[in-house]
Amino acid sequence: MRASSLAEKIGGVFEGPGNPELDSIAPLTEARDAQVAFLHNPAYGKFLELTEASCVVLTKESLPTARRFSAIVHPDPHRAMALAVEILYPAEIEFEGIHKNAHIDPTATIGNNVAIAPFAFVGPECVIGDNCRISSGCVLSAKIHLGPNCALHPNVTIYPNTWLGENCIVHSGAVLGSDGFGFAPVKDGILKVRQVGKLVIEQDVEIGANCAIDRGSFTETRIGRGTKLDNMVHIGHNCVIGEYCLIAAQTGLAGSTVLGNRAMVGGQVGFAGHQKIGDNCVFLAKSGIKGNIPAGSRFFGYPAKDAMVTHRENGYISRLGKLFKRVKEIEEKLGVHEEQQEEK
Amino acid sequence: MRASSLAEKIGGVFEGPGNPELDSIAPLTEARDAQVAFLHNPAYGKFLELTEASCVVLTKESLPTARRFSAIVHPDPHRAMALAVEILYPAEIEFEGIHKNAHIDPTATIGNNVAIAPFAFVGPECVIGDNCRISSGCVLSAKIHLGPNCALHPNVTIYPNTWLGENCIVHSGAVLGSDGFGFAPVKDGILKVRQVGKLVIEQDVEIGANCAIDRGSFTETRIGRGTKLDNMVHIGHNCVIGEYCLIAAQTGLAGSTVLGNRAMVGGQVGFAGHQKIGDNCVFLAKSGIKGNIPAGSRFFGYPAKDAMVTHRENGYISRLGKLFKRVKEIEEKLGVHEEQQEEK
Amino acid sequence: MRASSLAEKIGGVFEGPGNPELDSIAPLTEARDAQVAFLHNPAYGKFLELTEASCVVLTKESLPTARRFSAIVHPDPHRAMALAVEILYPAEIEFEGIHKNAHIDPTATIGNNVAIAPFAFVGPECVIGDNCRISSGCVLSAKIHLGPNCALHPNVTIYPNTWLGENCIVHSGAVLGSDGFGFAPVKDGILKVRQVGKLVIEQDVEIGANCAIDRGSFTETRIGRGTKLDNMVHIGHNCVIGEYCLIAAQTGLAGSTVLGNRAMVGGQVGFAGHQKIGDNCVFLAKSGIKGNIPAGSRFFGYPAKDAMVTHRENGYISRLGKLFKRVKEIEEKLGVHEEQQEEK
Repeated sequence: MRASSLAEKIGGVFEGPGNPELDSIAPLTEARDAQVAFLHNPAYGKFLELTEASCVVLTKESLPTARRFSAIVHPDPHRAMALAVEILYPAEIEFEGIHKNAHIDPTATIGNNVAIAPFAFVGPECVIGDNCRISSGCVLSAKIHLGPNCALHPNVTIYPNTWLGENCIVHSGAVLGSDGFGFAPVKDGILKVRQVGKLVIEQDVEIGANCAIDRGSFTETRIGRGTKLDNMVHIGHNCVIGEYCLIAAQTGLAGSTVLGNRAMVGGQVGFAGHQKIGDNCVFLAKSGIKGNIPAGSRFFGYPAKDAMVTHRENGYISRLGKLFKRVKEIEEKLGVHEEQQEEK
Repeated sequence: MRASSLAEKIGGVFEGPGNPELDSIAPLTEARDAQVAFLHNPAYGKFLELTEASCVVLTKESLPTARRFSAIVHPDPHRAMALAVEILYPAEIEFEGIHKNAHIDPTATIGNNVAIAPFAFVGPECVIGDNCRISSGCVLSAKIHLGPNCALHPNVTIYPNTWLGENCIVHSGAVLGSDGFGFAPVKDGILKVRQVGKLVIEQDVEIGANCAIDRGSFTETRIGRGTKLDNMVHIGHNCVIGEYCLIAAQTGLAGSTVLGNRAMVGGQVGFAGHQKIGDNCVFLAKSGIKGNIPAGSRFFGYPAKDAMVTHRENGYISRLGKLFKRVKEIEEKLGVHEEQQEEK
Repeated sequence: MRASSLAEKIGGVFEGPGNPELDSIAPLTEARDAQVAFLHNPAYGKFLELTEASCVVLTKESLPTARRFSAIVHPDPHRAMALAVEILYPAEIEFEGIHKNAHIDPTATIGNNVAIAPFAFVGPECVIGDNCRISSGCVLSAKIHLGPNCALHPNVTIYPNTWLGENCIVHSGAVLGSDGFGFAPVKDGILKVRQVGKLVIEQDVEIGANCAIDRGSFTETRIGRGTKLDNMVHIGHNCVIGEYCLIAAQTGLAGSTVLGNRAMVGGQVGFAGHQKIGDNCVFLAKSGIKGNIPAGSRFFGYPAKDAMVTHRENGYISRLGKLFKRVKEIEEKLGVHEEQQEEK
């Protein structure tokens, strides 16, 4: 596709020079001939002189007068890139229509233009919205609701009474609506409390590979609209995750924790149960969170504190060797014997 | 169902007043009309005045004389709740009988009243006990033993020679009996040591979604009766997990570690390999455990120590800023130059 | 099998005494009659006097003159063990040939002597090498390449355009080539950037149960030859993992990190994104790695540092209580009031 044509399709202004044929996308620093790159962050403007991309999409402010590449000016290069991927890379179509080797319960309701692959199981009273894609090995046990345009990648499992809104994407191996860790300690052992609540996943949510999200114990677990989970995220029963959160891989939330809107959560973070986390919080990777956290916080560490505090404490820890030495020197000066102290 | 009827079925004493119709269970603080709540912990007795539950199950000691709700007195409200769930919430039945699209090897032995869903695979020489349920996408490779009343949720995989006792529940995506991380470092690379041991899961065990439990390398890996694993727990080869343990999500045990009975393990805990952990230990979330731990310990931290010690050390760390300041003031008083010290 | 016959098959020298019949392998300290044990590490030579193994494989240097067991001398007992497993334990064969209930797209190319189980899905334009085994529930979506002799355990999912070299083993529930966590933050929410790169897995790689390895965003993610991943390892998009790495369970690498050859990574380690890690590094369990790490490093902690430094700092932390006391005693000696200090 010609650069001018791509510009038009992504809503940008073609500036030239030239009008190269483009076949793919690459980072500014790796792009070669016939590739288009995107300058999201003006700080990387320094790479514009070096890039070998045939075309670069950037804001008006970042456009250099002298340039070797053909430019497309766009107010939001991030959005432009998301659009360009759809245009330059055709989607792989692995299956179409409803395959005769899919199992579809006669009480299920299937929308228009739905694709269901061989060996997918759609159980009793499921309702599948228009344009949904259900891949091979997916199991929708019973009374599942999929809004329109949902895509389930292979081998997704959904437990009964789970509700998904429109435009959700669920990656392979994810388990939605499984039983929470609910047990009654009794004298002669541990008694299971059957989990009978629901899982509600609002629209535009994406769930990573091998995630597990538990249903509510009696009420519901909820994932807010637009939220994205990376791979292997665990969400315990009765959690309520806000809107437009980004939760990185291998993070876990114990039961009944409420995470505010627009949280940014790093990888391998753990949240204790029954906590309340305000909106717009940031949690750095591997943090262990306990306690209610006010909106706008930036936390780090194990146990996690305000990130500035943890950074400062980590600085002190790295200077402990010198501190021990300094105290010893003071003791020597004062005639106090450290060894004696040590034995106390 | 009337409250008096529920009281009878769960072995409680109906005390009234009234005899409301009940349709579901809810926490004391969220219950509304037609719901029953349970007071497990006398400390929450303060909520009895405020609850809008139509009925509350509690011990004789917690029963208030004046009350707006209809009461059921029960010696163990935790157990009562587990029973009430079974009565008030009918189980979802997604499939019944042995489906023609299940694959069952002719050498497998299937008990009475077994349900096997479409696209389940039951391989050679498997033995399936009475009343087992095997959901869609489950793969029982070969020589698997399921005791009576086991339930395998969809997409569970079981490797050869795995043995499960009665009443086990395995959630979706769990992998039982996979190869452990056994490799021989040789001069020209890394040689796989084929894993040929067994996995034994005793009765009444529950395995969470997307767990992975390795088979023994030569001997066996074992999960003790009544133990419950939350989602995404990893158990390495040759581990022996005791009875009635509770292991929270995303915890991992490296190979050959022995965990005693009734362990309580928080989320994201890691155990080194070849450790011996006594009975009745508690490990707080995200702890990193190395070393043999005596029975009855309560450990915390990374690296983990006695929880009291870690709490105390964390307290010291939070006061390090002041300690540095105090030492500096002493140095000033003594005429020692801190800057000079710092450069050493 | 007779010990002398086993010696011949594994390339060892049979030394006797006797020539016992052997049926299985066990650790030196657990072996009984009719079992063969292996002495990998001369440090464990002390167990030779106590072992009840009928036969022990060891190096010439470790061979005791007086012994109760029949000996096989081998230059590399680790390699000998890997070979002996193959001889003494026949592989389980759960299925053979291409099952009529497998779904194979007519555009797929299937090599010689391939086994594909019921309910496996092999999509358009897949190329399956000779002697591959594809178990039940595996989904090879489209344009997948499997080199010869690959084994996919049940319920593995592979996304489009993934390439595996020869002799790879993939355990159940693993997801290869899933979408990375690529999103464009835009004013009105979060926009998905469709992931269109590839995943390349070189020869002799083993992937543990329930791992998730993301495809490249535009270019590729790559796992080097001979590398072994334990269970539930997460590899983000665009990572490049070197050759002959050993990565233990529940470890995660955020996107675009480059891990050098022969890395030894403990369990539950986390790597930040966009880091460069040199060859021959060791990372102890649960470490949190940020920053570029030079070749040959041994790192530990959260945040991770040189393991010696972290060990030393942990030592200081365990002595903090005494340090606080010492400083207080100095203050008392100098007539400074600690309480006053504390309030500042």
